[in-house]
Amino acid sequence: MDFQLEHAQQILRGTPSALTALLHDLAEPWLIQNEGRDTWSPYDVIGHLIHGEETDWIPRAKIILEYGETRAFEPFDRVAMFETSKGKPIAELLDTFAELRAGNLRELQTMNLTPDLLDKRGRHPELGVVTLKQLLSTWVVHDLGHVRQVVRVMSKQYRDPVGPWKAYLSILEE
Amino acid sequence: MDFQLEHAQQILRGTPSALTALLHDLAEPWLIQNEGRDTWSPYDVIGHLIHGEETDWIPRAKIILEYGETRAFEPFDRVAMFETSKGKPIAELLDTFAELRAGNLRELQTMNLTPDLLDKRGRHPELGVVTLKQLLSTWVVHDLGHVRQVVRVMSKQYRDPVGPWKAYLSILEE
Repeated sequence: MDFQLEHAQQILRGTPSALTALLHDLAEPWLIQNEGRDTWSPYDVIGHLIHGEETDWIPRAKIILEYGETRAFEPFDRVAMFETSKGKPIAELLDTFAELRAGNLRELQTMNLTPDLLDKRGRHPELGVVTLKQLLSTWVVHDLGHVRQVVRVMSKQYRDPVGPWKAYLSILEE
Repeated sequence: MDFQLEHAQQILRGTPSALTALLHDLAEPWLIQNEGRDTWSPYDVIGHLIHGEETDWIPRAKIILEYGETRAFEPFDRVAMFETSKGKPIAELLDTFAELRAGNLRELQTMNLTPDLLDKRGRHPELGVVTLKQLLSTWVVHDLGHVRQVVRVMSKQYRDPVGPWKAYLSILEE
Protein backbone atom coordinates (compact mmCIF):
# COMPACT_ATOMS: atom_id res chain seq x y z
CA MET A 1 0.00 0.00 0.00
CA ASP A 2 1.02 3.59 -0.56
CA PHE A 3 1.20 6.10 2.25
CA GLN A 4 -1.99 8.09 2.72
CA LEU A 5 -2.04 10.83 5.31
CA GLU A 6 -5.63 10.11 6.29
CA HIS A 7 -4.88 6.42 6.88
CA ALA A 8 -1.84 7.26 8.98
CA GLN A 9 -3.91 9.65 11.09
CA GLN A 10 -6.57 6.97 11.64
CA ILE A 11 -4.02 4.53 13.04
CA LEU A 12 -2.12 7.12 15.09
CA ARG A 13 -5.40 8.23 16.66
CA GLY A 14 -6.26 4.69 17.78
CA THR A 15 -3.03 3.73 19.51
CA PRO A 16 -3.52 5.49 22.88
CA SER A 17 -6.99 3.96 23.36
CA ALA A 18 -5.75 0.54 22.31
CA LEU A 19 -2.92 0.64 24.84
CA THR A 20 -5.21 2.04 27.51
CA ALA A 21 -7.67 -0.82 26.90
CA LEU A 22 -4.85 -3.35 27.17
CA LEU A 23 -3.10 -1.96 30.23
CA HIS A 24 -5.31 0.38 32.22
CA ASP A 25 -6.86 -2.14 34.59
CA LEU A 26 -3.98 -4.58 34.83
CA ALA A 27 -2.44 -5.76 38.06
CA GLU A 28 1.10 -4.46 38.52
CA PRO A 29 3.00 -7.71 37.88
CA TRP A 30 1.76 -7.62 34.27
CA LEU A 31 3.01 -4.08 33.78
CA ILE A 32 6.55 -4.45 35.08
CA GLN A 33 7.57 -7.87 33.76
CA ASN A 34 9.87 -7.81 30.74
CA GLU A 35 11.52 -10.47 28.55
CA GLY A 36 14.82 -10.56 30.44
CA ARG A 37 17.89 -8.36 30.80
CA ASP A 38 17.86 -5.20 28.63
CA THR A 39 14.28 -5.74 27.47
CA TRP A 40 11.28 -3.57 28.15
CA SER A 41 8.13 -4.01 30.19
CA PRO A 42 4.74 -2.64 29.03
CA TYR A 43 5.37 0.17 31.53
CA ASP A 44 8.68 1.02 29.82
CA VAL A 45 7.05 0.98 26.39
CA ILE A 46 4.51 3.66 27.35
CA GLY A 47 7.32 5.85 28.68
CA HIS A 48 9.19 5.37 25.41
CA LEU A 49 6.11 6.33 23.37
CA ILE A 50 5.70 9.48 25.48
CA HIS A 51 9.29 10.43 24.82
CA GLY A 52 8.70 9.90 21.09
CA GLU A 53 5.74 12.29 21.15
CA GLU A 54 7.88 14.89 22.89
CA THR A 55 11.08 14.67 20.89
CA ASP A 56 10.77 12.52 17.78
CA TRP A 57 7.92 12.61 15.27
CA ILE A 58 6.51 16.12 15.11
CA PRO A 59 9.81 17.83 16.01
CA ARG A 60 11.46 15.95 13.14
CA ALA A 61 8.61 16.79 10.76
CA LYS A 62 9.18 20.45 11.59
CA ILE A 63 12.90 20.16 10.93
CA ILE A 64 12.17 18.68 7.50
CA LEU A 65 9.69 21.43 6.67
CA GLU A 66 11.96 24.20 7.89
CA TYR A 67 15.47 23.01 7.00
CA GLY A 68 15.09 20.16 4.49
CA GLU A 69 18.28 18.16 4.09
CA THR A 70 20.50 20.89 5.48
CA ARG A 71 19.97 20.00 9.12
CA ALA A 72 20.06 16.47 10.51
CA PHE A 73 17.55 15.42 13.19
CA GLU A 74 18.65 15.25 16.80
CA PRO A 75 19.40 11.59 17.64
CA PHE A 76 16.47 10.00 19.48
CA ASP A 77 17.18 8.67 22.98
CA ARG A 78 15.50 5.24 22.99
CA VAL A 79 15.92 4.72 26.72
CA ALA A 80 15.21 8.18 28.14
CA MET A 81 12.04 6.87 29.77
CA PHE A 82 13.96 4.84 32.34
CA GLU A 83 14.59 8.19 34.04
CA THR A 84 11.66 10.37 33.00
CA SER A 85 8.81 7.93 33.68
CA LYS A 86 10.22 6.42 36.88
CA GLY A 87 7.67 5.95 39.64
CA LYS A 88 4.65 7.34 37.80
CA PRO A 89 1.42 5.30 37.86
CA ILE A 90 0.54 3.62 34.56
CA ALA A 91 -2.78 5.50 34.37
CA GLU A 92 -0.89 8.78 34.44
CA LEU A 93 1.52 7.64 31.72
CA LEU A 94 -1.35 6.45 29.51
CA ASP A 95 -3.15 9.77 29.95
CA THR A 96 0.02 11.71 29.19
CA PHE A 97 0.60 9.68 26.05
CA ALA A 98 -3.01 10.21 24.90
CA GLU A 99 -2.83 13.98 25.47
CA LEU A 100 0.53 14.38 23.73
CA ARG A 101 -0.66 12.28 20.80
CA ALA A 102 -3.87 14.28 20.43
CA GLY A 103 -1.87 17.52 20.47
CA ASN A 104 0.59 16.18 17.90
CA LEU A 105 -2.21 15.06 15.60
CA ARG A 106 -3.70 18.56 15.80
CA GLU A 107 -0.32 19.97 14.92
CA LEU A 108 0.01 17.55 12.01
CA GLN A 109 -3.36 18.77 10.76
CA THR A 110 -2.29 22.42 10.85
CA MET A 111 0.76 21.61 8.69
CA ASN A 112 -1.62 21.23 5.72
CA LEU A 113 0.64 18.67 4.14
CA THR A 114 0.28 18.61 0.36
CA PRO A 115 1.74 15.77 -1.74
CA ASP A 116 4.72 18.01 -2.52
CA LEU A 117 5.41 18.67 1.14
CA LEU A 118 5.05 14.96 1.96
CA ASP A 119 7.85 14.28 -0.53
CA LYS A 120 10.11 16.87 1.07
CA ARG A 121 13.48 15.47 2.11
CA GLY A 122 15.28 15.65 5.43
CA ARG A 123 18.40 14.12 6.90
CA HIS A 124 18.48 11.35 9.49
CA PRO A 125 21.72 11.30 11.53
CA GLU A 126 22.33 7.62 10.71
CA LEU A 127 20.05 6.69 7.81
CA GLY A 128 20.82 9.70 5.61
CA VAL A 129 18.19 11.20 3.31
CA VAL A 130 14.58 10.43 4.22
CA THR A 131 11.26 12.00 3.25
CA LEU A 132 8.51 13.44 5.42
CA LYS A 133 6.22 10.71 4.10
CA GLN A 134 8.68 8.06 5.27
CA LEU A 135 8.87 9.69 8.71
CA LEU A 136 5.09 9.61 9.08
CA SER A 137 4.87 6.01 7.82
CA THR A 138 7.50 5.10 10.41
CA TRP A 139 5.48 6.79 13.15
CA VAL A 140 2.61 4.43 12.27
CA VAL A 141 4.70 1.26 12.13
CA HIS A 142 6.54 2.25 15.32
CA ASP A 143 3.17 2.43 17.11
CA LEU A 144 2.10 -0.96 15.81
CA GLY A 145 5.46 -2.49 16.67
CA HIS A 146 5.16 -1.38 20.27
CA VAL A 147 1.58 -2.66 20.60
CA ARG A 148 2.90 -5.99 19.38
CA GLN A 149 5.76 -5.81 21.89
CA VAL A 150 3.38 -5.12 24.79
CA VAL A 151 1.15 -8.11 24.02
CA ARG A 152 4.14 -10.36 23.38
CA VAL A 153 5.72 -9.48 26.74
CA MET A 154 2.40 -10.04 28.49
CA SER A 155 1.72 -13.36 26.79
CA LYS A 156 5.10 -14.74 27.87
CA GLN A 157 4.08 -14.45 31.51
CA TYR A 158 1.64 -17.31 30.81
CA ARG A 159 4.07 -19.56 28.96
CA ASP A 160 3.91 -22.17 31.73
CA PRO A 161 0.25 -21.79 32.76
CA VAL A 162 -1.00 -22.69 29.25
CA GLY A 163 0.48 -26.20 29.62
CA PRO A 164 0.23 -28.37 26.48
CA TRP A 165 -1.49 -25.59 24.50
CA LYS A 166 1.94 -24.00 24.14
CA ALA A 167 2.28 -26.03 20.95
CA TYR A 168 -0.46 -23.95 19.28
CA LEU A 169 0.57 -20.49 20.49
CA SER A 170 3.25 -19.10 18.22
CA ILE A 171 3.42 -15.78 20.12
CA LEU A 172 5.20 -17.66 22.92
CA GLU A 173 8.06 -18.51 20.56
CA GLU A 174 8.79 -15.00 19.28
CA MET B 1 3.83 -15.95 36.70
CA ASP B 2 1.15 -18.24 38.01
CA PHE B 3 -2.39 -18.19 36.68
CA GLN B 4 -4.72 -15.92 38.63
CA LEU B 5 -8.37 -15.81 37.66
CA GLU B 6 -8.65 -12.10 38.39
CA HIS B 7 -5.66 -11.29 36.15
CA ALA B 8 -7.05 -13.40 33.34
CA GLN B 9 -10.39 -11.62 33.61
CA GLN B 10 -8.67 -8.21 33.47
CA ILE B 11 -6.96 -9.06 30.19
CA LEU B 12 -9.97 -10.79 28.64
CA ARG B 13 -12.08 -7.73 29.43
CA GLY B 14 -9.69 -5.37 27.65
CA THR B 15 -9.32 -7.19 24.32
CA PRO B 16 -12.55 -6.07 22.60
CA SER B 17 -11.90 -2.39 23.36
CA ALA B 18 -8.28 -2.71 22.27
CA LEU B 19 -9.27 -4.23 18.92
CA THR B 20 -12.06 -1.70 18.49
CA ALA B 21 -9.60 1.14 19.09
CA LEU B 22 -7.21 -0.34 16.54
CA LEU B 23 -9.71 -1.16 13.80
CA HIS B 24 -12.97 0.71 14.21
CA ASP B 25 -12.13 3.81 12.16
CA LEU B 26 -9.81 2.23 9.64
CA ALA B 27 -10.20 2.50 5.90
CA GLU B 28 -11.13 -0.81 4.30
CA PRO B 29 -7.78 -1.60 2.64
CA TRP B 30 -6.24 -1.93 6.11
CA LEU B 31 -8.90 -4.37 7.21
CA ILE B 32 -8.79 -6.81 4.32
CA GLN B 33 -5.08 -7.06 3.55
CA ASN B 34 -3.37 -10.19 4.81
CA GLU B 35 0.19 -11.57 4.71
CA GLY B 36 -0.26 -13.67 1.58
CA ARG B 37 -1.95 -16.93 0.62
CA ASP B 38 -3.62 -18.77 3.53
CA THR B 39 -3.02 -15.95 6.00
CA TRP B 40 -5.58 -13.80 7.76
CA SER B 41 -6.59 -10.17 7.54
CA PRO B 42 -7.59 -8.15 10.63
CA TYR B 43 -11.16 -8.69 9.44
CA ASP B 44 -10.67 -12.48 9.46
CA VAL B 45 -9.15 -12.35 12.95
CA ILE B 46 -12.22 -10.69 14.46
CA GLY B 47 -14.43 -13.35 12.85
CA HIS B 48 -12.19 -16.05 14.32
CA LEU B 49 -12.39 -14.47 17.80
CA ILE B 50 -16.20 -14.37 17.54
CA HIS B 51 -16.27 -18.05 16.66
CA GLY B 52 -14.04 -18.78 19.66
CA GLU B 53 -16.48 -17.00 21.98
CA GLU B 54 -19.32 -19.06 20.55
CA THR B 55 -17.78 -22.49 20.46
CA ASP B 56 -14.44 -22.69 22.23
CA TRP B 57 -13.62 -21.22 25.63
CA ILE B 58 -16.74 -21.25 27.77
CA PRO B 59 -18.27 -24.32 26.10
CA ARG B 60 -15.03 -26.21 26.83
CA ALA B 61 -14.92 -24.93 30.40
CA LYS B 62 -18.43 -26.33 30.86
CA ILE B 63 -17.41 -29.70 29.43
CA ILE B 64 -14.54 -29.89 31.94
CA LEU B 65 -16.79 -28.97 34.84
CA GLU B 66 -19.51 -31.38 33.81
CA TYR B 67 -17.65 -34.36 32.34
CA GLY B 68 -13.99 -34.03 33.41
CA GLU B 69 -11.70 -36.26 31.39
CA THR B 70 -14.47 -38.57 30.25
CA ARG B 71 -15.58 -36.42 27.34
CA ALA B 72 -13.18 -34.81 24.85
CA PHE B 73 -13.89 -31.28 23.58
CA GLU B 74 -15.37 -30.77 20.14
CA PRO B 75 -12.53 -29.91 17.76
CA PHE B 76 -12.41 -26.12 17.16
CA ASP B 77 -12.88 -24.97 13.56
CA ARG B 78 -10.13 -22.36 13.10
CA VAL B 79 -11.45 -21.13 9.76
CA ALA B 80 -15.22 -21.14 10.30
CA MET B 81 -15.26 -17.35 10.06
CA PHE B 82 -14.54 -17.36 6.34
CA GLU B 83 -18.19 -18.37 5.97
CA THR B 84 -19.93 -16.98 9.04
CA SER B 85 -18.49 -13.44 8.99
CA LYS B 86 -18.60 -12.93 5.23
CA GLY B 87 -19.85 -9.51 4.14
CA LYS B 88 -20.51 -8.09 7.60
CA PRO B 89 -19.18 -4.60 8.37
CA ILE B 90 -16.22 -4.53 10.74
CA ALA B 91 -18.11 -2.35 13.23
CA GLU B 92 -20.78 -5.06 13.49
CA LEU B 93 -18.16 -7.78 14.01
CA LEU B 94 -16.38 -5.76 16.70
CA ASP B 95 -19.69 -5.15 18.50
CA THR B 96 -20.60 -8.81 18.28
CA PHE B 97 -17.23 -9.83 19.68
CA ALA B 98 -17.56 -7.32 22.56
CA GLU B 99 -21.07 -8.53 23.44
CA LEU B 100 -20.18 -12.21 23.32
CA ARG B 101 -17.05 -11.61 25.39
CA ALA B 102 -18.98 -9.64 28.02
CA GLY B 103 -21.56 -12.44 28.25
CA ASN B 104 -18.86 -15.09 28.54
CA LEU B 105 -17.08 -13.16 31.29
CA ARG B 106 -20.38 -12.96 33.19
CA GLU B 107 -20.78 -16.69 32.75
CA LEU B 108 -17.21 -17.28 33.96
CA GLN B 109 -18.03 -15.24 37.04
CA THR B 110 -21.10 -17.35 37.84
CA MET B 111 -19.01 -20.54 37.73
CA ASN B 112 -17.48 -19.49 41.08
CA LEU B 113 -14.23 -21.19 40.24
CA THR B 114 -12.38 -22.30 43.35
CA PRO B 115 -8.70 -23.41 43.21
CA ASP B 116 -9.93 -27.01 43.20
CA LEU B 117 -12.21 -26.44 40.23
CA LEU B 118 -9.44 -24.60 38.37
CA ASP B 119 -7.31 -27.72 38.68
CA LYS B 120 -10.06 -29.93 37.30
CA ARG B 121 -8.98 -31.98 34.30
CA GLY B 122 -10.54 -32.33 30.88
CA ARG B 123 -9.56 -33.95 27.61
CA HIS B 124 -8.43 -32.11 24.50
CA PRO B 125 -9.02 -34.11 21.28
CA GLU B 126 -5.36 -33.71 20.22
CA LEU B 127 -3.40 -32.55 23.26
CA GLY B 128 -4.81 -35.03 25.77
CA VAL B 129 -5.30 -34.16 29.42
CA VAL B 130 -5.52 -30.44 30.20
CA THR B 131 -6.78 -28.47 33.19
CA LEU B 132 -9.42 -25.76 33.39
CA LYS B 133 -6.69 -23.37 34.51
CA GLN B 134 -4.68 -24.15 31.38
CA LEU B 135 -7.76 -23.57 29.22
CA LEU B 136 -8.32 -20.14 30.75
CA SER B 137 -4.62 -19.22 30.46
CA THR B 138 -4.79 -20.19 26.81
CA TRP B 139 -7.82 -17.98 26.29
CA VAL B 140 -5.71 -15.04 27.51
CA VAL B 141 -2.65 -15.84 25.39
CA HIS B 142 -4.86 -16.55 22.36
CA ASP B 143 -6.30 -13.01 22.68
CA LEU B 144 -2.86 -11.46 22.95
CA GLY B 145 -1.56 -13.51 20.03
CA HIS B 146 -4.32 -12.26 17.77
CA VAL B 147 -3.82 -8.62 18.80
CA ARG B 148 -0.18 -9.11 17.85
CA GLN B 149 -1.23 -10.68 14.54
CA VAL B 150 -3.54 -7.77 13.70
CA VAL B 151 -0.85 -5.12 14.26
CA ARG B 152 1.77 -7.19 12.43
CA VAL B 153 -0.46 -7.58 9.36
CA MET B 154 -1.24 -3.86 9.41
CA SER B 155 2.39 -2.81 9.80
CA LYS B 156 3.45 -4.85 6.78
CA GLN B 157 1.28 -2.70 4.53
CA TYR B 158 3.80 0.09 5.19
CA ARG B 159 6.94 -1.93 4.61
CA ASP B 160 7.82 0.11 1.52
CA PRO B 161 6.54 3.53 2.65
CA VAL B 162 8.89 3.59 5.68
CA GLY B 163 11.92 3.63 3.35
CA PRO B 164 15.31 3.37 5.09
CA TRP B 165 13.68 3.19 8.55
CA LYS B 166 12.88 -0.45 7.76
CA ALA B 167 16.26 -1.25 9.34
CA TYR B 168 14.97 -0.24 12.77
CA LEU B 169 11.50 -1.83 12.61
CA SER B 170 11.73 -5.46 13.59
CA ILE B 171 7.97 -5.99 13.29
CA LEU B 172 8.40 -5.85 9.50
CA GLU B 173 10.63 -8.94 9.61
CA GLU B 174 8.34 -11.23 11.59
